[in-house]
Amino acid sequence: MSSNPDIETIQITKDNLEKLKFNSEGLIPVIAQDYKTGEVLMMAWMNLHSLRDTLKNGKASYWSRSRQAYWVKGESSGHFQYVKEIFYDCDGDTLLMKVDQVGAACHTNKRSCFYRKIQ
Amino acid sequence: MSSNPDIETIQITKDNLEKLKFNSEGLIPVIAQDYKTGEVLMMAWMNLHSLRDTLKNGKASYWSRSRQAYWVKGESSGHFQYVKEIFYDCDGDTLLMKVDQVGAACHTNKRSCFYRKIQ
Repeated sequence: MSSNPDIETIQITKDNLEKLKFNSEGLIPVIAQDYKTGEVLMMAWMNLHSLRDTLKNGKASYWSRSRQAYWVKGESSGHFQYVKEIFYDCDGDTLLMKVDQVGAACHTNKRSCFYRKIQ
Repeated sequence: MSSNPDIETIQITKDNLEKLKFNSEGLIPVIAQDYKTGEVLMMAWMNLHSLRDTLKNGKASYWSRSRQAYWVKGESSGHFQYVKEIFYDCDGDTLLMKVDQVGAACHTNKRSCFYRKIQ
């Protein structure tokens, strides 16, 4: 258990997974945030398989909606995301993952995918 | 334009909105982040109308998928989100909004919706 009384922790068991809501495609959005700086790096999607693998391996894996494929972040670029903590929101339909990001999170080689601003 | 050469800025015009990808329901996910502390507060959805209103009024408004309704954050609770900056990601299908959050972002009265941790 966390020492912070505001934080509840769960184990990923069958019962606990029922707290998470995957959408009609079996996916849940995941916000990846730099665990040190707090910079939001990217948003991607996981299915149950990639979430289990992420927890098991300590490296983020996702589901690519465009390629319809399981995807280990950094597999081709070396830009792995080592997972520190995963939180889920009040509705259980979004994850926030604190990561130790190797290199760039974005495929454009920017640190964060959010490098363009609306004004 | 921003003084940071890594940041590109756009005006929300008809052309620029074409850079944003709303999903098949006309929605785009929005990550709300505390502009001072970097804490990720919540994730919600906007349609074009709520994005335009957010930009016009400087206060976040969303589209509630469960209620199928336009929704000004804080309208009933007083917990408004004053918008400082909005970024969009490399794919143009997610927004990151830096906000000055009044009170709690979560309907449970927690500061952030991400108060439960997977272990």
